[in-house]
Order: sequence, then C-alpha cells, then structure tokens
Amino acid sequence: MNEEDLKKILYLVKDGRINIDDALEQIKTLPFESIGFATLDHHRTLRQGFPEVIWGESKTVSQIIDIMEKMAEQRENILVTRVDDEKAEKILKRFPEAKFNALARTVSWEIKSIKITGKGIILIITAGTSDIPVAEEAKVTAKIMGNRVDSLYDVGIAGIHRLFGQREKIFKAGVLIVVAGMEGALPSVVSGLVARPVIAVPTSIGYGTSFGGITALLGMLNSCSSGISVVNIDNGFGAGYVASLINRV
Amino acid sequence: MNEEDLKKILYLVKDGRINIDDALEQIKTLPFESIGFATLDHHRTLRQGFPEVIWGESKTVSQIIDIMEKMAEQRENILVTRVDDEKAEKILKRFPEAKFNALARTVSWEIKSIKITGKGIILIITAGTSDIPVAEEAKVTAKIMGNRVDSLYDVGIAGIHRLFGQREKIFKAGVLIVVAGMEGALPSVVSGLVARPVIAVPTSIGYGTSFGGITALLGMLNSCSSGISVVNIDNGFGAGYVASLINRV
Amino acid sequence: MNEEDLKKILYLVKDGRINIDDALEQIKTLPFESIGFATLDHHRTLRQGFPEVIWGESKTVSQIIDIMEKMAEQRENILVTRVDDEKAEKILKRFPEAKFNALARTVSWEIKSIKITGKGIILIITAGTSDIPVAEEAKVTAKIMGNRVDSLYDVGIAGIHRLFGQREKIFKAGVLIVVAGMEGALPSVVSGLVARPVIAVPTSIGYGTSFGGITALLGMLNSCSSGISVVNIDNGFGAGYVASLINRV
Amino acid sequence: MNEEDLKKILYLVKDGRINIDDALEQIKTLPFESIGFATLDHHRTLRQGFPEVIWGESKTVSQIIDIMEKMAEQRENILVTRVDDEKAEKILKRFPEAKFNALARTVSWEIKSIKITGKGIILIITAGTSDIPVAEEAKVTAKIMGNRVDSLYDVGIAGIHRLFGQREKIFKAGVLIVVAGMEGALPSVVSGLVARPVIAVPTSIGYGTSFGGITALLGMLNSCSSGISVVNIDNGFGAGYVASLINRV
Amino acid sequence: MNEEDLKKILYLVKDGRINIDDALEQIKTLPFESIGFATLDHHRTLRQGFPEVIWGESKTVSQIIDIMEKMAEQRENILVTRVDDEKAEKILKRFPEAKFNALARTVSWEIKSIKITGKGIILIITAGTSDIPVAEEAKVTAKIMGNRVDSLYDVGIAGIHRLFGQREKIFKAGVLIVVAGMEGALPSVVSGLVARPVIAVPTSIGYGTSFGGITALLGMLNSCSSGISVVNIDNGFGAGYVASLINRV
Amino acid sequence: MNEEDLKKILYLVKDGRINIDDALEQIKTLPFESIGFATLDHHRTLRQGFPEVIWGESKTVSQIIDIMEKMAEQRENILVTRVDDEKAEKILKRFPEAKFNALARTVSWEIKSIKITGKGIILIITAGTSDIPVAEEAKVTAKIMGNRVDSLYDVGIAGIHRLFGQREKIFKAGVLIVVAGMEGALPSVVSGLVARPVIAVPTSIGYGTSFGGITALLGMLNSCSSGISVVNIDNGFGAGYVASLINRV
Amino acid sequence: MNEEDLKKILYLVKDGRINIDDALEQIKTLPFESIGFATLDHHRTLRQGFPEVIWGESKTVSQIIDIMEKMAEQRENILVTRVDDEKAEKILKRFPEAKFNALARTVSWEIKSIKITGKGIILIITAGTSDIPVAEEAKVTAKIMGNRVDSLYDVGIAGIHRLFGQREKIFKAGVLIVVAGMEGALPSVVSGLVARPVIAVPTSIGYGTSFGGITALLGMLNSCSSGISVVNIDNGFGAGYVASLINRV
Amino acid sequence: MNEEDLKKILYLVKDGRINIDDALEQIKTLPFESIGFATLDHHRTLRQGFPEVIWGESKTVSQIIDIMEKMAEQRENILVTRVDDEKAEKILKRFPEAKFNALARTVSWEIKSIKITGKGIILIITAGTSDIPVAEEAKVTAKIMGNRVDSLYDVGIAGIHRLFGQREKIFKAGVLIVVAGMEGALPSVVSGLVARPVIAVPTSIGYGTSFGGITALLGMLNSCSSGISVVNIDNGFGAGYVASLINRV
Repeated sequence: MNEEDLKKILYLVKDGRINIDDALEQIKTLPFESIGFATLDHHRTLRQGFPEVIWGESKTVSQIIDIMEKMAEQRENILVTRVDDEKAEKILKRFPEAKFNALARTVSWEIKSIKITGKGIILIITAGTSDIPVAEEAKVTAKIMGNRVDSLYDVGIAGIHRLFGQREKIFKAGVLIVVAGMEGALPSVVSGLVARPVIAVPTSIGYGTSFGGITALLGMLNSCSSGISVVNIDNGFGAGYVASLINRV
Repeated sequence: MNEEDLKKILYLVKDGRINIDDALEQIKTLPFESIGFATLDHHRTLRQGFPEVIWGESKTVSQIIDIMEKMAEQRENILVTRVDDEKAEKILKRFPEAKFNALARTVSWEIKSIKITGKGIILIITAGTSDIPVAEEAKVTAKIMGNRVDSLYDVGIAGIHRLFGQREKIFKAGVLIVVAGMEGALPSVVSGLVARPVIAVPTSIGYGTSFGGITALLGMLNSCSSGISVVNIDNGFGAGYVASLINRV
Repeated sequence: MNEEDLKKILYLVKDGRINIDDALEQIKTLPFESIGFATLDHHRTLRQGFPEVIWGESKTVSQIIDIMEKMAEQRENILVTRVDDEKAEKILKRFPEAKFNALARTVSWEIKSIKITGKGIILIITAGTSDIPVAEEAKVTAKIMGNRVDSLYDVGIAGIHRLFGQREKIFKAGVLIVVAGMEGALPSVVSGLVARPVIAVPTSIGYGTSFGGITALLGMLNSCSSGISVVNIDNGFGAGYVASLINRV
Repeated sequence: MNEEDLKKILYLVKDGRINIDDALEQIKTLPFESIGFATLDHHRTLRQGFPEVIWGESKTVSQIIDIMEKMAEQRENILVTRVDDEKAEKILKRFPEAKFNALARTVSWEIKSIKITGKGIILIITAGTSDIPVAEEAKVTAKIMGNRVDSLYDVGIAGIHRLFGQREKIFKAGVLIVVAGMEGALPSVVSGLVARPVIAVPTSIGYGTSFGGITALLGMLNSCSSGISVVNIDNGFGAGYVASLINRV
Repeated sequence: MNEEDLKKILYLVKDGRINIDDALEQIKTLPFESIGFATLDHHRTLRQGFPEVIWGESKTVSQIIDIMEKMAEQRENILVTRVDDEKAEKILKRFPEAKFNALARTVSWEIKSIKITGKGIILIITAGTSDIPVAEEAKVTAKIMGNRVDSLYDVGIAGIHRLFGQREKIFKAGVLIVVAGMEGALPSVVSGLVARPVIAVPTSIGYGTSFGGITALLGMLNSCSSGISVVNIDNGFGAGYVASLINRV
Repeated sequence: MNEEDLKKILYLVKDGRINIDDALEQIKTLPFESIGFATLDHHRTLRQGFPEVIWGESKTVSQIIDIMEKMAEQRENILVTRVDDEKAEKILKRFPEAKFNALARTVSWEIKSIKITGKGIILIITAGTSDIPVAEEAKVTAKIMGNRVDSLYDVGIAGIHRLFGQREKIFKAGVLIVVAGMEGALPSVVSGLVARPVIAVPTSIGYGTSFGGITALLGMLNSCSSGISVVNIDNGFGAGYVASLINRV
Repeated sequence: MNEEDLKKILYLVKDGRINIDDALEQIKTLPFESIGFATLDHHRTLRQGFPEVIWGESKTVSQIIDIMEKMAEQRENILVTRVDDEKAEKILKRFPEAKFNALARTVSWEIKSIKITGKGIILIITAGTSDIPVAEEAKVTAKIMGNRVDSLYDVGIAGIHRLFGQREKIFKAGVLIVVAGMEGALPSVVSGLVARPVIAVPTSIGYGTSFGGITALLGMLNSCSSGISVVNIDNGFGAGYVASLINRV
Repeated sequence: MNEEDLKKILYLVKDGRINIDDALEQIKTLPFESIGFATLDHHRTLRQGFPEVIWGESKTVSQIIDIMEKMAEQRENILVTRVDDEKAEKILKRFPEAKFNALARTVSWEIKSIKITGKGIILIITAGTSDIPVAEEAKVTAKIMGNRVDSLYDVGIAGIHRLFGQREKIFKAGVLIVVAGMEGALPSVVSGLVARPVIAVPTSIGYGTSFGGITALLGMLNSCSSGISVVNIDNGFGAGYVASLINRV
C-alpha cells in the first residue's frame, strides 16, 4: 500500500536515519496516489448517498453483472441505464432484488433505503407522450439520488391551455426538467412562467428536419427565456443528475 | 410579328393555296410564342391588381430605375424590396411620388390607388423588437397587394401573457404571419390558439447556435401545431405575398 | 367543477356576505380554468367539422385504440396517420367501420358524413411516382377536413410538357399542394404558372446528396417564385391541414 | 383599467341588477388581463431583487435609454448586456450613476443596493485568457442578482496542474460556471472533481474547425461527466442567470 | 384526338365558314398538346438510339414489368437500374431475353442491336475495388447508349505508379469517367494528365468522416484541375449518360 | 540540362567505355525529368491553342505581372480570372494590349489570334440577372479557348415561358452551360428539353437558406434529368473550360 | 519484360547500329515502367518488414482469400482489418496458422517472425471501455509492424485521478495513441503531460450530439495542447500505422 | 514557499514534536503544488530547448509584450504566432533583437542560439502558392525547435510531374509536413511515395464548397494512404510542433 511508503520515510526521518533534504526528495518522487490522491478525492465525501451508475448501452450483460458485483461490495445503491428488456431479464435473474423500469429502460438496485436529501420538489414535464421514456429515465435518476419528484406529461405548446391548467404544480417545484422533441419550445414557455432553474432535455422524437433531436436542442439553446440550461439529446439521466445536484446546493 | 405567321397560313388555307395537311404541318412548327404563349399567360389575368416587384438587393440604382421606368408604362403599382437608405434616396429623387419605408427597406410607388381585394384581416405578429423589420416588409407587401393588415409586435413566448392579452386581435384575423428569430417557437403557440393558416417567417436574429436563422427555421418546420407553413429566413416579402394569395382564395 | 367556485363567490356578493374588494381578490386567485380557459378555447368552435387526429408513428396499437375510443365519444371523425399494415389490421379489427389507405398509411373513421366546407378545389401534384404516398396522406387529410380534392401525379420538371399538358386542372385549383423529392423544383414551376397559394412538401425520395429530403426542402425555401410556403419533409398531413385552413379562410 | 370592468360587474351583482348566470357569462368574456394576468404573474414575486435586463446588441442607444427610463420608475436595478464602448459612453452620459464594464460589455445601474440572496459562492472558471469577456458577463450578471462570486481564469486542460493548484477554490464553490472555447473540455474535468452543478459556457474562441464555438458546445454536451448542463455559445449572461436561480433554490 | 380539333378549324377556314380572326382566336385557345407539344418534343429526334430507362430502386417488380411492357411497344432498348438480385430474377422470368448484371445492379434488354454512335472511347477508372459496382453501372449505361467503353480499375492515388503504368489507355480515351470514394482525389490527378473531359463520380465508400460520399464529392468539386465536372454520389448511371451525350456532340 | 545526362551515358555505351548493365543501372537512377517527363507531358500537345490561365484571387498584382511576363515568352494567349477593378487597372498599365472584362472580372491577353477549334456552339444560360457575372466568366473562358459562344440570360423557371420562347437557340447548341442561384432548378428544365451535355454552375446568389450557393449546388446534383454534371459554386471558369474540352472531343 | 526493351536499345547503340539521337528518342517513348518505375519504387525498400494490409470491410471472404494467397508468395506478414466473426472463421479454415483477434476484428498471419524495429514503446490509451476495440486494432497493427506496445484503458477525464495514477507508464512512452469518443478531450490532457507525439483517434462511441464521432474529432482538432495530430474516426489501424512510422524515424 | 511547508513538517517529525500519524495527515492536506507538482512537471525536463510560444491572435500588443518580458527571464527562445504587420512593428520596437516573418506572421526572438536536436530533415510541401503562409508558420516553428527544415512549394496534384521531379528531396526527409487547400489530396500522393510520417495541414484556400478548409480537412482524414495524421485548418504552428516532437522521438 502506497500510504505505507510515506509512513516509512517519516519513520526514517524520526529516527534520524536520513536527513531532511533526502526525505524531501524521496517524498517528491513518491507515486502520486500515496499523497495527492487523498486530496483530490477529498471532495468525494460530498457524494455520500449518490448511487453508483452504469451506462448499460455499450456493455454486455456479463460486463454489467461483473461491475454490479464489485459495486455491491461498497453498499451503495446501483443504477443501470439504457438497458433493454432482454438484458434486464438476465440482470434480474442474477440480482432478483433489483427492479427494472421498462419505460425508463433502467435497472435500479436499492441496496440501502433512499434518504431524501434534496430540498425541494423536482418536477419533470414532457411536451408529448413520446417524450415520456426520457422523462422516466430522469425521474428514476432523481429518485434514487434522494429527491421528491413529481411529473406533468403531454402538455406541449400546441395546446398551451393544458400547461396553464397545471400552474400550481409548476409554481411549487424547486427545479424543473422539461423534456421535448420536435421544435423543443416547451422549456422556453415554462421558464417564462417560473423563476426556477429549468433543465431542458431535447429528445430524438420527430421526423424529417427534426434531425434526431438537433432541432429541439437548438431551439432550447436559443431560448428567449433566460433560466434554461441544456443537456445532450435523450439524456434523461444527465438531467436527473444535474437536477439532483442543484436540489442539494 | 409571330401572330402574323399564323394568320398568313390561315389565309393560304382560306384561299385554297395549300391543303389542310400541309397547313397542319406548318402550324406545328411555328414558334411557340405565336400560339401557346397566350395559353400559358392566360392565367395571369388572375393577377390583376398585383404590384410589380423588384428585388433590390443585387441590383444597382440605375438598374432599378431602368426597370421601374419600363414597369411604369404598364400602370401597375411598383414595390422594390431590400433597398438601403442610400439607394432609396436616389430612387426617390427620380420618382418623387414613391415612398420609402426605412424599417421595411422598401420603396412603394402607388401609381394607382390600392383596391382592397383581400377578404379578411392579415395579422402580423413578431416575437421580439428585432424581428420588426422583417414584419414590416411583410406588412408593406400585404398592403400594396390590397389587404387590410394589423400587427402585434414583441409578444414572444418568454412572457406569454403579453400574447394572451391580445387574444381578440388574434381571433379576428383571417390569415396570420408570425415572425420570430432565436428558437422560433411563437408560430407554434399562435397556431395552437387559432384555426387559421399561419405563415411562419424565421429571422436571422440571435447569436451563437441561432446560425443566422436556421434554428428558428427548423423549429417552425417541426412545429407540433398543424396549421403552419414556412418561408425562407428573413423573407418578409414572401410571407406577405403568400398571405395575400391566401386572403383572395 | 371550477365554474362553481366562481358562481359561489358571485352568490356571496349578491347576498352581501362579502364586500366587493374581497370578492375581487378571491376571483383573481381562482384557478385559471374556471375563467380564462373558456376564453382561450372559444376559438375552437371555429374548428367544428375538423377531425380528431392521432399521429400513429410513435404509438402502440393499444395506445391508438384507447385514444380512438375516447375520441369516439365526441362524435367527430377520426384520422390516424403513419400507420403501417400490421397496426392497421389490428385497429380495423376493433373498429370495422374505419378504413385503411395503405398507400397513405392512414386509418380514417367517418363517424358522421363529411360536409364539404372548403370553397375551392385542392389540387395535389407530385413530381414522381415515389412521391405519391406523401401526396395521398395530404389527400386523405384534405378530404376528411371537408374539401374537394383533385390530383395530378408524376409530372416532374425533367419532362415539363407533361405538366403543361394538364394546364386546365392547374388553373382550376384554389389551393395547390406540390409534392417533390430530389431537387424539389416542381413547386417553383407550378407557382410561376398560377396566382394561387402553393404548399410545397419536400419528400425524402432520392439518394446521395438528397440527404433524405433536405435538398428538396432547401430548393423549395429558396424558390424564385413568390407564392410558395413549405412544410416539413414527408409531411403530407401538415400540407393537407394547412391547405384546408386556407380553403376555408 | 381592466380591473374596473370586473369590479363593475360585481357591483351589479351586489345590487341585484343582473342575475348570477349573466354575470358569470360576462366575466368569462372579460379581457384576460383583468383576471388571469394576476394569477399568471403571481410567481413573479419570486423574482424580487432580480434586475431588469436589456439585451443591447440589436438596439440603438436611444431605444436603450427609453427602456431604461421606463424601467427606472420601477426602482429595480438595471443590467444592459452586449454594449460596445461607443454605446456605453452615450448611455453613461444620460445615466451618470450607471457603470460600464468594458470587458464584460455591460452597463449596470444599481438603483438600490444589491442584497446578497444567493446561498453559496458562484465560481467562474475560464480555460484561456480569451474566454474572459464571456466570463465577466457571467460575473456581472451573478453579482447584480445578489450572489457572492469568485473567479479562476486561464486554467485550461493543456496545463492541468494549474487547475489542480486551485483545488481549494473549486471545492468551496456552490455552483460553478466553466467557460471554454476550442475543444471545450474544461467543464468535464471540473465536473469530475466536484459534486456541484456545473454550467458550461462554450465560447467562439478558436479558428478553423472550432466553427465559432460549435466544437466547444458539442464537447460540453457530450461530456463524460454527469453534472454538466450547457447554455448557448458566448452566453455569459445566461450562465450567470441560471447559476443565480440555482443558488437560490 | 387533339390534332383533329385543329384540323376541323382549318376545314372551316377553307370552307369560309369562319373568318380568319375567329379562327386565330380559336387556335390560340386550343389545348397545348394539339400544337405546341410537337414543337417541344421536336428535339427528341436527337435521342434516337437512346434506351428507355427505369430507375428501379423505388419501384415494385410489378410496376417495373408494367412499364417495360409499355416501353417494349416502342421497340427501343430498355435499361433498368438499381435492381437487386431478387427483383432481377422475377423480371428475367417475364423477359427471358433481358440480361442482369449483378455487379452493376442493372437489367438490360436489347430489343434491337446497339449501333455504335459515340465517336471516341469512354474510359471508366476506379480508385478502389469497392468503387467497381458504381463504375459498372456507368459502363452498362454507356454501352447500351452506343459507345465503345474501356475500364481501368483499382488505380487510386495511394499507389500512383499503378495509374501511370496505364498511361496509354488514359491518353487514348475521348471521355473519362473517374469513380472514387474516400478522399475522391483521383479525378484531379487524371484530369491533370489529359486534356479531355472528366466526369467525376463520388462513391459512398469509406467510413467515419467520409460521410457516405460527401467528402469525395467535395474533393471533386474543389479539384485544382480544371477539366472536371461532377455527378451525384454513386450516380454511375448519370455519369454514363453524360459521357454518352458528350461522346456524340 | 537533364537530357544531356542521358546522352552522355549513350555515348559512353557507344564508345564501349561502360558495359550495358552499368548503363542500365545509371539510366534507372537518372532524374525523372530527363526521361519520363517527356512521356508524361506528351499528351499536352493536345492542349495546343489553350490559353495559359492565372487564378488572380489570391495573388498580388506584382505576382500576376511576373507570371504573365514569363508566360508571354511562350506566345500563348493568357487569361487571368477573379481580378477586381483595381488590380485590372494596374495590369493593363503594364500590358496595354490586354483587355479587362469588368463583369466577368477577367483580364484576357490575346497574344495570337484565337482559332475556332470547337465544333458546335456553346450556349450559356442564366436564371437571373444576378447570375450574369459568373456566366460572363464562362463566356470569356470558352471564347479564348476557341469556341463560338451564345448566351441567354434571365430565363429562370418562375416565368418559364421566357425560356420556351427561346427554344430555337437552345436546340441549336452543342454544349450548354446553365448558371443559376437560389433553388438551382433551371439546369433540370433545360436538360429535359435537349439531348446535349449540360454543365450546371451553382451561384452564391440568394439569402437565408441559400447558404451561399449550397442549395443551388444540391439541387443540381439531385436533378431528375440525366444529362447534367456540375462544377463548384460560382466556378464560371471551370464550366467554360469543361465545355471547351467537350466541344473538341 | 520491359527492362529488356531498354537493354536492346543500349546494345544497338553499343554496336553502332543506331545513332545517339535516335536512341534518345526511342528511350523517351519507352513505357514508363521500364525506367521511372524503379525510381519511384526505390523508396519502398524502406518498408521492409512492413506487413501487407487488406481492408476487409468491403470485401467478400473469397476476395480476401484470393488476395492473401497472392500476398503469401511474397513471404511478408499479412494483416486483415475490419473482419467480423463469420468472415474470420472462413479465413482461418483456409489459413489455419493465421490468428483472429475478435475485439480488434483483425486477422494476422505471421508468415515470418516479427522483428522489433521500433525504437521506443508505443502506449495506447483509451478514455472508456467502449473505445477498446479501436485501441486493439491500433495495438495489433503496431505489433505486427515491429513495435513494443503497452496500453492503459478506461482512464477518461471525468475521473482524471485514474490517469494521473499511471503517470509512469505515460512518461516512459515514445509515441502515444489516445483513443476517445464522446467529447474527445483525453488527448489534450495527455499531450499536456508529455513532450511526445500524440496520435488522437476519435471513436464513434456516444449518442445524440456525438454524431458518430464527429464531436470527438472536432475536439481533438481544436485541442489547446500543441503536440496532437488526428486520424479518421475509428481508424485504429491508421493510428497504429502512423505511430509505427514515427517510431522508426 | 510551499516546499517549506513540507520541510517544516519533516523537522517536526525529526524533532519528535509530532507523531507519525499526525504528520501523515498533515502532508496529505498540503497544497498540491508543494508535492505533486514536482512529479507532474518532472517530464518537462524533456522539453529543454523548446521555445516559449504565445498565440498572438487574440491578444493586444501590450499583453504580448508583458508576457514576453516575463518569459525573457527564463532565458528560453520565444515564438509569437498570428501577429500582423502592425502588431509586429510595435513588438520589435520594444524587442529590437526579435525578428518578424511577415509571410508566416511570426515574431521569433532567439535569446540563445538554436541547437539542432532533431535527427532528420523536416520537409514542408505545399500544393499551391496560396498555401505558403501556413507552410512558413510550420517552418519557423520547426526551426526554432531545433530542426533542419527544407521546403518544396507549389507542387499540387493537378501537375503531378512537378512533384515527381523533386523525388530526391522527398525521399531524403525524415518527417514531412504537407500543406494543401482546395481538395487537399496532396498528402495522400506524398504518403503513397514514402514510408515516413506525413503531417497533413488543410488550409482555408479555395471558394464555394471548399468551406474555408473543411473540404481539404475531410480529404486528408479520409486518405487512402495510411501514414497520414492531420492537424486543424491553417494550423502551421501545430504541424511544426508535432513534426518536431516526432523528429526527436
């Protein structure tokens, strides 16, 4: 173990077996981990209560299971994203206590019970029904990270009265995640209504010039409302993660 | 003159100097203009009352004046678009009765008084103040084409209550032109409110990923509302022209 | 019910149980729906005779059937777009009186007979045979929205005499929908022939630099003819909808 | 005034001069502002202490001064962004108590003293010296919105030890704004170090394939770190605004 | 029949039953086909010896067979392009005398023997072996259009001595078709060697930033050699067709 | 001189001062120019009568004059393209017998009289008046390369009868250059009329989504007519050069 | 054989049967290969020890086997890239001594044992586990080209301490290949640490705006570190090849 | 000074004034620089003889002079890139011993004489004369980094015999930098000739679809030759830097 190396040098100094300058020189050449690592990782204590996360898309089932087994030793909750039905079935056979959310395409394994550490409510809004899977990924993420989460689906701007009919929910939220494909204009409208941070998530829903979500993304980046920041296309997990960080500031 | 050629053949037929089959053959090889031209241009009578239009951007002042002089002989009103201050001054020196709209960058010369032939009101809406020049080009165009025009400026979706505060105007319009830059979402909201055709005009207003209006254009093409059709970026003239055609259907 | 809340306050006022200022204050804090909603939806009466529309692409059969069942209660005609053969078969098993148009990929259910409310003829033109499915989607849409519709297929500009051979049809139309892939130039030619609104629909037909319809779209947006407005790539439904709105202005 | 209309109806009700149903009907058709406006704007009380903001780029000096005069009546602080030296000089001649920040290109007018309402420190980091103007715009924004702000400039990833040498500052921040052009990788590194929300701002600094900031933007959207959300290219104001919202959650 | 209409008028003129001016007026309003059509199609006599061509990609087998049957009546050779193995098999079952070229994905049916009308040799060159299918489509096209064709495959610029080893072939050609994917540089080199027209055909061969042939296309359009013109990506047929037109100038 | 080296070796062989194998070895290592160069350049005799061409855009006046002086020694005609007024004036001061075409932005110096070597007429067509400068560059190029050239300007597809009114000119041409901006559809129409090679030249004329000529370029590459090949945007010179090569096949 | 032709001419000179000038003329017209080819290929001796390489992606198994058989005659090692499992199985059936690397998708056949000719160590680093296949292709390539290779996988910048924990490996390398998808920032960090050439390889790993590797590519091209050059997306082979050339400079 | 902090702790240990565990804890929390910095910067000794470099483009003259003054204290040579004439004049007024290369737009100040540490010759090749400024930037960079540099300008592939005429120079080089705009094909040809690393530099030379160098960049990334790696558009400095690193491997 690296820390031992540093300890040894200190004992030598203590015992007067090497002089100060030589000790200094030796410490400087010690592997980084023995010293600086601790400093660098110090901030990680802030992350207590955060789940371990595995991006499942480009991994085989056996890779995922291997990683889950190692993670389980640390007794943190585990979230696997981008898991299809077939993969999920195999993972749950191995870890029967984990849960699969088919809509969100996530496997969550709550090794210890979730403690609510987020201060306010995270509200997740979608423009259409096709945006719901991405919203659900955000919801699962925000929940396992210790937040109270509410949702408001299918309230796009073509029938804007549906959105206004739910004003109360919107005004109660501390952080909002707004998920939209096509022209991606919903976050602008929502952000115009509330003085709260809005995380905008473009989805790949649409056809023709929706370009797999690029149009929605561009619309969100160019919002005429000021309180919006944006994550990658279909990145429900990222939105849930950012919202969770905000909710604990 | 070409028509004469056809006449000559008919006289030869009448006089029995050529037989029918030869006449038929000769008529078939006559220049197109002498016959078909009339047919093709027949529909143009529909255009009575439309102004002659000159796209001023890529033309010199002397080119514009030349064309205006020729057009003036036909006694139709004349509209010159994309004219800057300097050009306008010179044009007005030559045609003092023409009028320059500096905001719309148009010169209009009403040789005969405009007759209102459009049935309903064309309402022109902008999202921001920076979109007004494009809106004004549309307004000038629609007016000189014989329409009643109303406008509603600076009612973008970030403060959507301003738009709703003007519901009555919106519900009264027969055709709507909605001009917006940045994320270009205003036409979607407007089209969700009324069962009227909405012409969406993206503008090049914005910065960064607004890409000179492409983001607004894409937003409009991907609108989740169904009653929208779109013209080129900053094409106020085109919007005014299309709206006029619609208003006379 | 929300309207009741407002009524209650009025009774209290009437009975002198609260003073005017308190009533005013209470009314202001009433849920939006109880008051403004009615106003907002007022314009919808304009839509009488319009079908209910379901975008079938991203929905499962059971989702579609659920929505259709709810809609059927309102006794409006129903149009489902972007339905493939397999989905259609299942939908028709449940609603045997609905009809599937395999070319247009639509299911139409005429619960009540269509009343012609459109004034003129909507003419749908295609450049090639491959553009016909998109044109048919427009046709089905325009028909169920109460219009007389005619069509003219496979008259692209490479053999422009075919188009001219059908001048009469073109001159008779009140609104024109022109559907084209590849270079997308047909709307420009058609719009040069008639003083009528032309809705241009780019299709994804082509290969290489056709970029799934972007080339056709750009060609249409940059048309040197002035009477053209454009909808999204392959958006036959949108074109039919816009044309219907225009035809009732 | 609209409120009066409502009042009048209530008096009529009170006096029994109209029955309840007629009153109900009349209220429903009242202009939106008289009633719903209040509801919609209710949330705006949350914004107390926020400055009024003017986007100076597309406005003339006289337009800016007009707006400032009107705003000044509301006794809120005023921030004008995207103001060049020439415009600023004229604005300050009119409002001598306002201050121009040439680097940030902002004019701030603190009509009342700023109250610190943000909970933590907002730390603004830049990759290079050329990114500083955008960072300064964020700084000015965050300050006038009532936050304590710190900064750390020119610590890009090519010499990553400079960043690590400032760990303490980074670990102390509640919200971080990271501004970077070129490859835009700095937010990823920073977000890997802290469990705090990171607002990434791409800048247009670079040449060739930096595409005026698009490369930096894409890099940030695709970050392998999870706590990042992104605003538009060069949008320092937006970043400062979002960070302020987060800091008050 | 339309021609009859014109004939009738002529007989009336001949018989003195209508006067010349009335006849003139009537002729002008005759359907376009009866007269102008002939004029427009006059140039088509230039095309004698050209095959009829069917773009097979977006057509069903039965559509293709229908068209072939109609065409066969005109006794011109027939070329069907973009036909896969499965379609070809069915077509050949119906027209056993037609021939399928699996590499070129073409079906050719030589109803009458091909007469060589092209003056020089058309040489088709490819950069790699993967470009050969596109080259073969060009070859089949040029052959059925009456040209002598030679080819030179797999002589890309990475091993430029292979190209130079075949100088004689290159210098003998009257028109050259150069087919290349990846960076698309071969046409530049070839055009630098000969003072002959070079038709460049980009192919979709490559990966990553080859973008399905766009890189090759751009390389060809920006050639530093002057004698190059370009057709669409993978458009072997177009290249063969253009080369044939050139070879008969 | 290199040829001398080879001669020397042959004399040594003749005189028996070196043996055959050594001579062989020495010849193989001779500089390329002494031997192979001749072979490679052999084809250049085909180019007799072609002018020397200088791309003036990125060169200073003194660079251009230097090159012209050297070229003048070879007694070939000289063409300088992309020369603005200021540069031209200085060039003509030095070579008073050269001629400047301000529209085409070319300087031509006919050191010897041009001999017509092209077989047919090259016809240059433009869609609009703004496309004329590019057309003129093509015209100047084709003329100095020994061709008879005709032109037909401002016959775009929005008023297609103007084009048809000039059928005779079109049918007489051997090669056609069609220059168009905006949607770039004119080459498709022209190519549908004649069985002659059409060189399409996109121009940067347009605004918004014309993207400096890209839309026109894409339109041309995706033409539904088969006889079209394309050169770079605004590349009038290239079109004139290719047409000249074709006209001498 | 071509060399014989030259020899014959020399014998004629030697024997005085032709004069020097005639000999000179004849030599000049000899086929290129007989003389210049040798010169051109002279440099190829530098390549001794390099394997023959076949790009397997666009080739059939039988094509690959044919080429391998011909190559085997030259007794150089053979590397086939982009081979899937199915193809590999068939190739190995024919050449049982060849080896398939399923991860790298390569077949290597070491006909003669590899001699280490590279001077230093080539270190291959990946950002994530999904980048490993591309890294393995680079590794296989570098090994068969005679280099010592080391690797360091899954050390991306989101957890940068993992990278720093391996400083020693990094400082020992002579050439570094850094493979990364998503934002592609790892090469910048690595290049900031060492004064060694870094070959950056973007991978197509990611989703949404990763655009199949374009974002990573752009990030690498715009690196703020100076020692980086880049190859095509997923081009592990190219990186291994370039690194090998560098390692033998 | 930070090192002192560590020293102090060691003295305390030595003197027995703190125990080992406390010392360990204190060392771990020491600022990073005091310990790890040395380790991280250890590799920098490799950089001895490298100049300090300032990117002049986005800096004012006074900023540049400030940085130069600080750097001068370290007695390393200084290179300033992207300096225009005006800036250069002012810099040279302050540092008269520095030298300005107007073509390369660099200021070099050789405070100590350059020691040749590069092993082979770096050869810099350009396709056209317009590419020379970028090549010169590479040349200046490579020279001040201690390399022998040769150049070969204006040998593009349209006249490929000029390139072949200079084979000897090419075969002698250890590393090659190939600079090209337009289609960017020269690096492919060069890399096909030599088994040496080729650094390809795309330039922004061209027009129309050259897209400011993107076409050249894409051509280079997709080269069919294997020994090429690429730097950013116009990045002559980067190419010279990478080549220097390679030349010292």
